[in-house]
Amino acid sequence: MSVKVKFETDPSRYRHWKLETARDRARLTMKVDEAGGLSPGYALKLNSYDLAVDIELADAVTRLRFEHPSVSVVTIDSALDGMFCAGANIFMLAHADHGFKVNFCKFTNETRLAIEDATANSGQRYVAALNGTCSGGGYELALACEQIVLVDDRRSAVSLPEIAYLGVLPGTGGLIRLVDKRKVRRDLADVFATLAEGVRGERAVKWGLVDAVAPRSRFNEAVAERVAALVDSKRAGRAGVTLDALAPAASETEVRYRHLTLRLDCTQRLAELIIEGPASVGPKDVPAIPAEAAALGADFYPLRLFREIDDALLRLRFNYPEIGLVLIKSAGDLDRVAELDRAMWERRGDWFIHETLLMMKRVLKRLDLTAKSFFAIVEPGSCFAGSIFELALAADRIYMKSGADAHIATGVLNAGAFPMGNGLSRLSTRFIGDPARAAALATGGTFDAEAALEAGLVTAAPDELDWEEELRLAISERLSLSPDALTGMEASIRFAGPETMETRIFGRLSAWQNWIFQRPNAIGEHGALKLYGQPESPQFDYRRT
Amino acid sequence: MSVKVKFETDPSRYRHWKLETARDRARLTMKVDEAGGLSPGYALKLNSYDLAVDIELADAVTRLRFEHPSVSVVTIDSALDGMFCAGANIFMLAHADHGFKVNFCKFTNETRLAIEDATANSGQRYVAALNGTCSGGGYELALACEQIVLVDDRRSAVSLPEIAYLGVLPGTGGLIRLVDKRKVRRDLADVFATLAEGVRGERAVKWGLVDAVAPRSRFNEAVAERVAALVDSKRAGRAGVTLDALAPAASETEVRYRHLTLRLDCTQRLAELIIEGPASVGPKDVPAIPAEAAALGADFYPLRLFREIDDALLRLRFNYPEIGLVLIKSAGDLDRVAELDRAMWERRGDWFIHETLLMMKRVLKRLDLTAKSFFAIVEPGSCFAGSIFELALAADRIYMKSGADAHIATGVLNAGAFPMGNGLSRLSTRFIGDPARAAALATGGTFDAEAALEAGLVTAAPDELDWEEELRLAISERLSLSPDALTGMEASIRFAGPETMETRIFGRLSAWQNWIFQRPNAIGEHGALKLYGQPESPQFDYRRT
Repeated sequence: MSVKVKFETDPSRYRHWKLETARDRARLTMKVDEAGGLSPGYALKLNSYDLAVDIELADAVTRLRFEHPSVSVVTIDSALDGMFCAGANIFMLAHADHGFKVNFCKFTNETRLAIEDATANSGQRYVAALNGTCSGGGYELALACEQIVLVDDRRSAVSLPEIAYLGVLPGTGGLIRLVDKRKVRRDLADVFATLAEGVRGERAVKWGLVDAVAPRSRFNEAVAERVAALVDSKRAGRAGVTLDALAPAASETEVRYRHLTLRLDCTQRLAELIIEGPASVGPKDVPAIPAEAAALGADFYPLRLFREIDDALLRLRFNYPEIGLVLIKSAGDLDRVAELDRAMWERRGDWFIHETLLMMKRVLKRLDLTAKSFFAIVEPGSCFAGSIFELALAADRIYMKSGADAHIATGVLNAGAFPMGNGLSRLSTRFIGDPARAAALATGGTFDAEAALEAGLVTAAPDELDWEEELRLAISERLSLSPDALTGMEASIRFAGPETMETRIFGRLSAWQNWIFQRPNAIGEHGALKLYGQPESPQFDYRRT
Repeated sequence: MSVKVKFETDPSRYRHWKLETARDRARLTMKVDEAGGLSPGYALKLNSYDLAVDIELADAVTRLRFEHPSVSVVTIDSALDGMFCAGANIFMLAHADHGFKVNFCKFTNETRLAIEDATANSGQRYVAALNGTCSGGGYELALACEQIVLVDDRRSAVSLPEIAYLGVLPGTGGLIRLVDKRKVRRDLADVFATLAEGVRGERAVKWGLVDAVAPRSRFNEAVAERVAALVDSKRAGRAGVTLDALAPAASETEVRYRHLTLRLDCTQRLAELIIEGPASVGPKDVPAIPAEAAALGADFYPLRLFREIDDALLRLRFNYPEIGLVLIKSAGDLDRVAELDRAMWERRGDWFIHETLLMMKRVLKRLDLTAKSFFAIVEPGSCFAGSIFELALAADRIYMKSGADAHIATGVLNAGAFPMGNGLSRLSTRFIGDPARAAALATGGTFDAEAALEAGLVTAAPDELDWEEELRLAISERLSLSPDALTGMEASIRFAGPETMETRIFGRLSAWQNWIFQRPNAIGEHGALKLYGQPESPQFDYRRT
């Protein structure tokens, strides 16, 4: 997988999905182009998917929110006859390296969570219309939808055949969504998840695996009835905002976006994310948000910046596995960021501002879940205030130069506008033992290095004499440590406090899957994943661990 | 590790700990016998430990509750000068196979949780008196104590050097207890967990790593003051119950206890746990619980039975890795179990009954966390009522013979007497989406197979014609599946609902550690764990996953 993956696409370029919208509803139809996989060597038969397919799905889910805000129900179906989706392509998985498999599962999980976020927070509700068999990742996609309707034709079933056929887990949230979201009884979940052929018809309804079944003759009607019951026609007047291409200028050592530069030093295994603050004609003169905020368009600074950060994080994950540490830097006017944050918060009732805040939230979560170390670096001229300081709060450590004219500021958007996967703000997570302090800091304030250190907002505040040396040491020490131990450590300490379905997917299910993805029983010469589709049967080392 | 491990010991046989009790307080002193390891090939220097050391600790923690119920504070210290504990022995870890490492970490975690359970529920509070350096698993033992006092001698530090030295995680709950229990700020936890030399003195207090420091001259006094403030002298009149040896008769195919038989078919990879119900002189005539329940002694049926189950589970984990599926069976009088449960519940205010219920709770949790599949088998003559039915509720599936005279019964002890690690009863976890049903079933009732199936209490109820064949198929199917995928699946679906520090330790931290324990960066030829103590430096594949 040494080819660099690109994450930007748009509906005119989709090879695997068809997106149709009609005022208040949309239809997203899966018709995977067998030859359209990301890499050569496998055919995407039977609506099986690889990363290329999921990049398009993620794009569609995002565009539906910004470009089609009048849509309140999205139906996902398949263009194939009798087959909704066969799940992730096994031949792709069997030949991918470990890091790619793990990152692929993580990205597909994030896409499913984006569907649930749209349902919960944007009023865009998803219905899975399973017009045929729905296996593995296909059923996991259905699980992400609010409702699941399955055709009852004595043949089409929902199934999670991963354990039986491949010796791995349904790793896109399947097991967790079964028991945590759909609240399937644990012994039935056990039977279902070990039953290769799956469950169909009324039994699928009774076990809670789907919401309804309908015979083929009534299937479209049954789906349409459910869609009609969910539609919210009050949104119909909203005009969408087209998301233009980010089209960064990329070289070996740099990816340059409009407000962001990603610098790459692959030899040192070090990257920098350098954020440029919001520009303006004069000091502290942030352009007012118009009555219809959507008139700001895709150029709106926070939307553009966070879309750029999202793209940069995905590139870091997939295209630069050797990068171990990312320094987050910023340059700009602190007050201007704070003012823009305040303006957004005042107008959060506007759909476009609301969507922009949700986009920022998702990008921050993507950062929380990126298996790289992050250090935020605060120097004179930095603009780590509010929403941009939130990126620092997402970092593993924050270094701030003392005795210099460096400042940080907390503000209204640090108070809960961007909940982490655990449901808490980053300030609340940071001060999990001291909620009063978290609340006090969230009311806003500007801090020099000494005050920030005292308040617990930064990790260390070396003075000008020590700054270079202390940073150099911290960086080289971090880069010397086992990358696996760091990944496990970060996954354990970034998410103090409550767990949610979301954190359980990444913290519990993914961790077990990663373990299984390393085991000879899956990927060894005689492993089940390796031998899938071959005449030979897998041979297991049956010792239980 | 093909030698069979024995888990029974008593203070007269301890090689690594000294247990002293004086009325209301106890002292547990670590003085590890270098030559007393479980296996040859490593010396337990500097109070480093292996499974043999932890088996004694677990024994001491249990005996303190039953044999020394007047004790309200336990101080843990070390007999070495300037060294509290160096943590798990690295040479042992580096040479152990994967399954042993994982089971070792699980057992040590359970022992730490037993300390916390004694503190929370038995009024036996633990103080860690760190009279010297305290590293890795040593600090993790301290983290399990309610209070930690560290000597301030400009030398002694607490540390988690696993990441820096070994490329693995502090896997005995360390990272989770740092942020979830002691609520150490996440960036400070990040610094601490990557700092091999650790943190000492006032900084350790300020970061929340210890509760107090004291100079060597005042150390004993400072510890004594804290102990005195915690002591509860009201317990002083309690006479303890000596836990006699279980001393089962063990052969190649069977371990026979008084109320339990563990049958082993290693060729089929199948075991059976067969429980004999409480005996009695006449029908439904359960001996009354005397005014001082402790007079019942260690022969008290539920105490003896659950101690036997605990021992059998540990043998299954460590000594029979090839066993994949355990059938839980029972034979006895349903009503007698229910009557005994009711009698216990009425007398739960008595310390001995209380301790017995807590022991049963811990054993049930041990079952939840055992990486084997469990099917409960209910046939005519079974006595799956209340506390014994709870074992079936802990199983992955329950098969009940229909059309025969088989019954199960829920009762007062299913209503929350035995919370799982997630804090919920097994009935509440089972019906996570239907709390009303869980509550209704917890009020008690007797069910034949049809009623049990209808109520959702059993997974399947084949009739007499199908029983043999259906069971045979379910067993052979289970035994054919990838043992790794089953372990990951069971870890994901056994624990629906809320997460706690405890479930995070096993679900999140352990899962990541298991992954790391498989990685070449830890255990490969050039891995950090493998090369520890050698002149050669580890070589990492730095690609982040």
